[in-house]
Amino acid sequence: MGRRKFKFWGWGYTDEVASPTERQMLKGFYGQRFSVSDWTEVAPPTVDEITLPAARISAPGSLTGICSSDAEDRLIHSYGKSYPDSVRAFARSFPNPPDLIAYPRNENDIISVLDFADGMNAAVIPFGGGSSVVGGVETAVDGDYRGVISLNLQNLDRVLEVDVVSRAARIQAGVLGPQLEAQLKPHGVTLRHFPQSFQYSTLGGWIATRSGGHFATRLTHIDDMVESTRVVTPAGLSESRRLPGSGAGPSPDRLFIGSEGALGVITEAWMRLQSRPRFRASTSVRFADWYRAAEAVRALSQADLHPSNCRLIDSEEASTTGVGNGSAHILVLAFENADHSVEPLMARALEIVASFGGQWNTDALENAQAHRSGESGAWRNAFLRAPYYREVLTSIGVMYDTFETAITWERFADFHANIIDITRRIIREVTGHEGSVSCRFTHVYPDGPAPYFSFYALTRRGSELEQWHAIKNAASDALIAAGGTITHHHAVGRDHRRWYDAQCPLPFRAALRAAKESLDPKGILNPGVLVDP
Amino acid sequence: MGRRKFKFWGWGYTDEVASPTERQMLKGFYGQRFSVSDWTEVAPPTVDEITLPAARISAPGSLTGICSSDAEDRLIHSYGKSYPDSVRAFARSFPNPPDLIAYPRNENDIISVLDFADGMNAAVIPFGGGSSVVGGVETAVDGDYRGVISLNLQNLDRVLEVDVVSRAARIQAGVLGPQLEAQLKPHGVTLRHFPQSFQYSTLGGWIATRSGGHFATRLTHIDDMVESTRVVTPAGLSESRRLPGSGAGPSPDRLFIGSEGALGVITEAWMRLQSRPRFRASTSVRFADWYRAAEAVRALSQADLHPSNCRLIDSEEASTTGVGNGSAHILVLAFENADHSVEPLMARALEIVASFGGQWNTDALENAQAHRSGESGAWRNAFLRAPYYREVLTSIGVMYDTFETAITWERFADFHANIIDITRRIIREVTGHEGSVSCRFTHVYPDGPAPYFSFYALTRRGSELEQWHAIKNAASDALIAAGGTITHHHAVGRDHRRWYDAQCPLPFRAALRAAKESLDPKGILNPGVLVDP
Repeated sequence: MGRRKFKFWGWGYTDEVASPTERQMLKGFYGQRFSVSDWTEVAPPTVDEITLPAARISAPGSLTGICSSDAEDRLIHSYGKSYPDSVRAFARSFPNPPDLIAYPRNENDIISVLDFADGMNAAVIPFGGGSSVVGGVETAVDGDYRGVISLNLQNLDRVLEVDVVSRAARIQAGVLGPQLEAQLKPHGVTLRHFPQSFQYSTLGGWIATRSGGHFATRLTHIDDMVESTRVVTPAGLSESRRLPGSGAGPSPDRLFIGSEGALGVITEAWMRLQSRPRFRASTSVRFADWYRAAEAVRALSQADLHPSNCRLIDSEEASTTGVGNGSAHILVLAFENADHSVEPLMARALEIVASFGGQWNTDALENAQAHRSGESGAWRNAFLRAPYYREVLTSIGVMYDTFETAITWERFADFHANIIDITRRIIREVTGHEGSVSCRFTHVYPDGPAPYFSFYALTRRGSELEQWHAIKNAASDALIAAGGTITHHHAVGRDHRRWYDAQCPLPFRAALRAAKESLDPKGILNPGVLVDP
Repeated sequence: MGRRKFKFWGWGYTDEVASPTERQMLKGFYGQRFSVSDWTEVAPPTVDEITLPAARISAPGSLTGICSSDAEDRLIHSYGKSYPDSVRAFARSFPNPPDLIAYPRNENDIISVLDFADGMNAAVIPFGGGSSVVGGVETAVDGDYRGVISLNLQNLDRVLEVDVVSRAARIQAGVLGPQLEAQLKPHGVTLRHFPQSFQYSTLGGWIATRSGGHFATRLTHIDDMVESTRVVTPAGLSESRRLPGSGAGPSPDRLFIGSEGALGVITEAWMRLQSRPRFRASTSVRFADWYRAAEAVRALSQADLHPSNCRLIDSEEASTTGVGNGSAHILVLAFENADHSVEPLMARALEIVASFGGQWNTDALENAQAHRSGESGAWRNAFLRAPYYREVLTSIGVMYDTFETAITWERFADFHANIIDITRRIIREVTGHEGSVSCRFTHVYPDGPAPYFSFYALTRRGSELEQWHAIKNAASDALIAAGGTITHHHAVGRDHRRWYDAQCPLPFRAALRAAKESLDPKGILNPGVLVDP
């Protein structure tokens, strides 16, 4: 089809890898941290190195034109992009690839695939950009299925209608971020939803996983941008009305937002759009004390200012990502607006941060491109490049992973100290080395932040998965015990299922299971995710 | 218990009625409109005029202390506050009162009532303030129930915890608006949710019906202010975590928000609060042309200004409510903020309205109390007093009612013209007189307004219900046919059920029915509302 292929063993397209300079930088940085001068590197896998089990099912005649059982396709659709996915890819371990990959061209094709799967009891795993870091697209499923089909929506990649009057567009679910914005641009509108996975994730994936965008406040959750949805379920097509607001019963859209492919296949949505920003202000603010910095962010979040960026990065993470020298905690602060100047908002924000001892970069304030230079620029670059670093780190035996949550402000300080402490301790216990655990806020709300923890550790070759599970389990147990959520925007997938079950109110789970049984009576959709039929 | 009693035949407490001046004003106004000089007035009903059917069930010993079958209590809990409720009350028609009213003191009492009802197959109708205008608390239910219990939550009226750090509070569901704000005030925080029913509606009712507050934009929907919920269902207690945000599956809260008492009894919620506003600006803007005024409001709503009030009132409604003299369409425009001046926002808003030909009241801008004086003040007064006018209008045979919806901007002009035309026509056909149909925007979103239609008509005595049904059906059919929602914030109840079924995607309805069956297997909760088991 002439499409660029995704790597089956890492982030991005096959022709995009970490540069030699980046490899060198990473080996130097982690070499110093772990006192390793000579890294043993495992080369990325190639298709012909991997022995795949034979496909258990094949496409019926009517679907052969849209199905593939090509080896590379099966590899690409085996995993998402998490750390354990990376480890297994570098270990050449692909025991449960999909038997078939379907590339529907339209909704009718999706219905045909579901009919086929339903008839022969095959599992269907909806696949957008494949950027899940929680096992959401993994094709290893428990249960008595005759086979597994990965349903790749890449051909549903069009913006079908743009309504500039209401600032909304009808968009197919399989469109990747850049394709989406490119199609909106000629109309002068933008979705402005920029998750870290933007380039390799799709509108349908964002909706199915309750994605959080790059904005730190307000219009960042895809939930709030959905005007209506169109979802193919085994029980029929569910299409909601385009409504700016409605009070008619529980929201139909909100059932499918976050349904992670377990209730239906999202095929289209009308999305609320923005005008393109014309006014900007940006700076970075340094704080000596982390909890005082957090207090400043709380004050900002409760002052009705709605910064577009309000990411507080602790000194440990700032140093890892090259944002500053690690001597201070750094708040990346930005405003943007399509209609009017944001200077009064920035001025008020700076008064607030000053009252908490924050010191900001005054040069940046004079510079319209400040969000792309200085500490803000360094942060932006690290944010965009970080996913590529995993292929280097896994290859040299460094575990780098993240987990994220949300908590109300009044519990934040204890919560944070506790999570950092437990995670540091378990890394030490499990790996025998000091690791690193750092924190930033990806999103902030008036009632609390969404803390995002990054950690790295030196693994023992061959034991990476076991070590990762021990660390992941301890950190996840701690999040749930301390009152957080197992995920703020990464989703539940297969990796978070146990803790999702623990945090989900029991009657709600029963209701969700009943909903699942009514929409997907044979349980063919993304088995193991969210709820078991 | 020494509580003030609600009227069983109208709005508010028994000691609050339309004043003689208001009665005179209304009789004069509608007398002129309908050329009636001598109105025949029906007196409000008294308890002893009404013959009630004997109660079919009585409280078991353990519940006698919290139950009543007093005649006035049974009358109060028979109906909500809609026009047909008013007509039936003035007709002394109460054929289906509840057999029993339960006043639980706590969650355990609620569980006991549900257990009792479940065991003997009685229907349970949760009752907050009883202000439903859609038949949401009506005790006439179809089905094979041995009796009906109205579950009045008035004793659950406390703010249990206030977290000023996270600006949130744990609040019992039965608290009325003024009680709620009075308990928050000492802490310097406010929910700032002011639906028209504020004085006679409860937090639990707001959540159960997806209430819309007085704010015209942004933080107006109760949906967005809910941090977590606690709901007693026949299948157990569902309590969600306090989280500022979460991406863990479909939101548990969003299933119960809008569930209208059909899935469980909301007993508590953690609610997100605001600081009390310190900065205000307010004015009214006059427009000669309605659709140009609507365009101005669209521009305002898409300019990221977030006015607290942005109510566009057409000249017909302005004249009915005494806001101006009917020569212009009037936009009530206001900003408020707890943290910083709103003058830049008002200045930008006035630039926008000027570019659409709007002319504003400059005196009001100089006056900090402007939102309580002039046209804004007249509007505010009419908004607060209007619910009391119904007892006068029904008593003289004038039908006054409202219906409300939402629609995206690009369809608004045709939609509005069509709805106004159809409703005027049906009033003429049904009553033989010209009536009045007017429109205002109660809420506006970047993608569309929530138009609120008010109408009045001269009824034929004895045929009021039949005439109302004919008008209501025609208007509702038109809303749904033209792509709107049957309700933006009044809820579905029993009155809107037919159109709710029509607008709700079929697979979602199946999922909701399955959820209902899992949470309320015997179907005892608010039968007939939203979904049948």
